[in-house]
Amino acid sequence: MADGAEPAPAAAEEFAKRIGDEVRRAVEQAKELQDLASALKARTSGEEQLIGQRAVALDSTLRRLRSSIDSQLNLKLLDPKLAEKLEEELQRARCIMVDGDASSFFPPKPQGRFLRMFLGPINVRASKKDVQLKVKEEYNSYRDRTALLFLLFPAILLVLRSQIWDGCLPAFPVQLYQAWLLVLYTGLAFRENILRVNGSDIRPWWIYHHYFAMIMALVSLTWEIKGQPKCSQKQRGVQLFLQWAILQGVAMLLQNRYQRQRLYTRIALGKAKRMDVVWGETAGVEGQLWLLCPILFILQGFEAYVGFLLLRTAFVGMASEWQVIFCGMLLVIMAVGNFVNTVQTLMTKSRFKAKMKRTKSKQCLD
Amino acid sequence: MADGAEPAPAAAEEFAKRIGDEVRRAVEQAKELQDLASALKARTSGEEQLIGQRAVALDSTLRRLRSSIDSQLNLKLLDPKLAEKLEEELQRARCIMVDGDASSFFPPKPQGRFLRMFLGPINVRASKKDVQLKVKEEYNSYRDRTALLFLLFPAILLVLRSQIWDGCLPAFPVQLYQAWLLVLYTGLAFRENILRVNGSDIRPWWIYHHYFAMIMALVSLTWEIKGQPKCSQKQRGVQLFLQWAILQGVAMLLQNRYQRQRLYTRIALGKAKRMDVVWGETAGVEGQLWLLCPILFILQGFEAYVGFLLLRTAFVGMASEWQVIFCGMLLVIMAVGNFVNTVQTLMTKSRFKAKMKRTKSKQCLD
Repeated sequence: MADGAEPAPAAAEEFAKRIGDEVRRAVEQAKELQDLASALKARTSGEEQLIGQRAVALDSTLRRLRSSIDSQLNLKLLDPKLAEKLEEELQRARCIMVDGDASSFFPPKPQGRFLRMFLGPINVRASKKDVQLKVKEEYNSYRDRTALLFLLFPAILLVLRSQIWDGCLPAFPVQLYQAWLLVLYTGLAFRENILRVNGSDIRPWWIYHHYFAMIMALVSLTWEIKGQPKCSQKQRGVQLFLQWAILQGVAMLLQNRYQRQRLYTRIALGKAKRMDVVWGETAGVEGQLWLLCPILFILQGFEAYVGFLLLRTAFVGMASEWQVIFCGMLLVIMAVGNFVNTVQTLMTKSRFKAKMKRTKSKQCLD
Repeated sequence: MADGAEPAPAAAEEFAKRIGDEVRRAVEQAKELQDLASALKARTSGEEQLIGQRAVALDSTLRRLRSSIDSQLNLKLLDPKLAEKLEEELQRARCIMVDGDASSFFPPKPQGRFLRMFLGPINVRASKKDVQLKVKEEYNSYRDRTALLFLLFPAILLVLRSQIWDGCLPAFPVQLYQAWLLVLYTGLAFRENILRVNGSDIRPWWIYHHYFAMIMALVSLTWEIKGQPKCSQKQRGVQLFLQWAILQGVAMLLQNRYQRQRLYTRIALGKAKRMDVVWGETAGVEGQLWLLCPILFILQGFEAYVGFLLLRTAFVGMASEWQVIFCGMLLVIMAVGNFVNTVQTLMTKSRFKAKMKRTKSKQCLD
């Protein structure tokens, strides 16, 4: 052992021996731990796969049963009361599958292009239910926090404009607001994509809507804010956009408030499990549509109006920058998309009463 | 069962009975699967926790042993050859821990602010080694793909400027380039944060560097590209920036090429396992520093030069926009940070030969 050039003193030799033993023991322990870990993995991965396969098979059975009940019901070959009872049973089975422990053994859904583009191949599905719940809760609180800013930021800009800035917005605060919008919409787009991977049935349109909003924020950053003279005429588009944003902030606040209150009431009544927040994505929106409908339609109309106004400005020749045309078109597209999706949700609700019931029971009530 | 208003015909009754049985069976299966899944989870989570605790304990033992070997070696109480042998053993143990199956049972590291801000509470650590490897490979290919564009995009802009645009860059292509830079740097920042969570020891500075680059891209979008007259004078900053970007693209291409070749050679020699790409973050850079050093230092000098030039432009009064001052300062900060970090890496290499050896063995060679 002591093949060094000089002989070591006794204390040093003692140390060398002791540390050598300790190192050997550590290596042994590492190997042991590795064996334990790989044995555990080998043992569980087989079982996990088996459960996953059975879960997938059962899932398709549940789908098949539901559609055959549906078709028999439509042919009036099945008693509606019985059909309802059977569907409730099926829903119970589905709830066990999606809310229970088996859900984490489902093979992961392929992630969308947006996540792949920014995050690469990493999977963002939470394997534990409590993490999924946390993701949803954080999404709600993110919306809460940002809704207030969404309202205040443009409101302050407009107040300062009329009180201090003499009817003429300076470039920097507006650009700061646009950059904040970009960050906000990016955060929403990421969170909603992650919710989707984790099983939320959020409508794809709302995610696309946030992509469009991201692009618009980016484009608006390149849009030169023109000053004097005739500033109020040149800034008409920005001003309208800010007014629309205030209305949007009010709608967001109302939505968040309503959704949360509704959930708390249902939890208090014992009708909802806490996981509801993960599985009732559209449900909250549907329930409050009759209250929020006027505001939502006014918003969409105003959005389209701002879009058309921008387009007119561009074609009349007051501002011929491409940004004006681009933002105008995006706003019109977003307004139309929002309108169509809101109407579709309403149609589903009013036309197919039976279907609505099933949509409701999607929330996995107790 | 037939409590409907009209009595059902025989075939319908038959169907009702059959589907009722099937639904009941499906519910039974769902319950069974749920029991299986929760039993498996209960069984494995205890074992996983135990392995995780032992892994953490062993990790701190390894650290303690390494530092006590170091201190004895510094006091010349340990034979250097023996110390080297012991450190190799320790490194072997560490490699088993970080490359093996036990690594996935380590408690997750807290994620940085950047990931929390955009993604919420979701964890991006891959539990499987092959996914971690895929993450690293995708990062490399992302860099490869973008390095070429990083070189071509500004080169094309500069060529078009002198050949077609008469010495005057139009706003739109430059803004498109700036938006692309923003997306690119955001993608890099996400990927590097994810690599870090997955155990890569990439230097934090390079991630901060990409945050600064993101901010600069965002700010440069709000920076009005001024046209005629005296366009070449007004656009001097943009022009310098594009030239710097070309040089940066060349350096990126060289780095990627070198790193990849070096890895392949080592795999061919049987010296490296494929997992090296995950655990040799700084190693590749260190190895090629002597080749890339001149280019890197020229880049950093040029970066600082562009920064100073922008600042001078602003203070002389040729362009008094805040964006000019801000981008100038950011470029100087980035150049200084890059320089300091490159020098630190070189210092580590040349001063502490022994330490360097350990840094090298960090790659978990066979």
